[in-house]
Amino acid sequence: MNFQTGGRVVFFATNNLNKFREACMVMREFNLAMGMLRIKSLEIQSENLEEIAKFSVLNAFEKCCIPIIVEDAGLFIEALNGFPGPYASYVYRTIGNEGLLKLMENVKLRKANFRSVVAYFSAELAAPICFKGEVAGEITEEVRAGSSGFGFDPIFRPERSDKTFAEMDIKEKNMCSHRAKALREFAKWYIAHKRIV
Amino acid sequence: MNFQTGGRVVFFATNNLNKFREACMVMREFNLAMGMLRIKSLEIQSENLEEIAKFSVLNAFEKCCIPIIVEDAGLFIEALNGFPGPYASYVYRTIGNEGLLKLMENVKLRKANFRSVVAYFSAELAAPICFKGEVAGEITEEVRAGSSGFGFDPIFRPERSDKTFAEMDIKEKNMCSHRAKALREFAKWYIAHKRIV
Repeated sequence: MNFQTGGRVVFFATNNLNKFREACMVMREFNLAMGMLRIKSLEIQSENLEEIAKFSVLNAFEKCCIPIIVEDAGLFIEALNGFPGPYASYVYRTIGNEGLLKLMENVKLRKANFRSVVAYFSAELAAPICFKGEVAGEITEEVRAGSSGFGFDPIFRPERSDKTFAEMDIKEKNMCSHRAKALREFAKWYIAHKRIV
Repeated sequence: MNFQTGGRVVFFATNNLNKFREACMVMREFNLAMGMLRIKSLEIQSENLEEIAKFSVLNAFEKCCIPIIVEDAGLFIEALNGFPGPYASYVYRTIGNEGLLKLMENVKLRKANFRSVVAYFSAELAAPICFKGEVAGEITEEVRAGSSGFGFDPIFRPERSDKTFAEMDIKEKNMCSHRAKALREFAKWYIAHKRIV
């Protein structure tokens, strides 16, 4: 593959291989190379994804001292006052898809949003820069797992699709996902500024 | 009231008046005076209360530079793999007692633990010191609110009691609560060390 990065690789601080695979595919659209850095960056408790991502990327940068991105995502279900919000991964590990579906039993309003914030920081910047993506959809009535996806993907169907995120392959999911949108915003900005950041 | 604190007041960094009232009553058992400091200290995302409390107390100390305690508590429900754990206050604000009871519908194993960690830090210490308290009990079948309590108190009945935490007055709750136990451990230590910390 012919990456035209001028020798620069953007590193993504994450321990989530699924997120990394999705990100690589988005970066490829822009001829950008991406590396995975498996460091555990601190996340703060907040209902504001941007606040969490900014804190995390500074914490990751302190540890590695190279230009770096982190990504923080959340699932916000309208009928549950935004739950599980930024705590989606903890909620997934404990009560899982079945728990969320139980909470949504007999609930007619099934609207939900997946939101993503990508935060970038390098020594050349005064503060982290954030890029956002969002996708509206609904919580399905049952678990609809497929060949890919992770977390709550099997119970989230984006608007204007018959499939849940888990029933899509990565390419399809990246056409509409919150994460891909945020990463594309980052990639466009990065290409425009990479000589200086 | 005749506080024999030698002019020293322990400040509790919290925005939760209920917690502060419980803490004051425990401190009074030891003739210690307690002040409330309404600063917002950062909390990290972790499943380890001690880790959260240590980070928070250092963050609070950075802001106020006086000897200070923070307290972090969680509700760990066995059948839900520890959910809501350290995120109890967020889960309470979003899905509430009704949400937790819905998750526990038709669940026979109703065991749960409330856990508390009090962390203390002052300029004289190299690192925060933590004190723990825990109470075992079960999740009730319905909301049993009373005259006091907050958060998940109306659905938690401690072992060897007919009442939920919310059906107890503060004095009764402090006889057995996780928070009172942790605060008593702190108070004993503080009295033994207050000349030097």
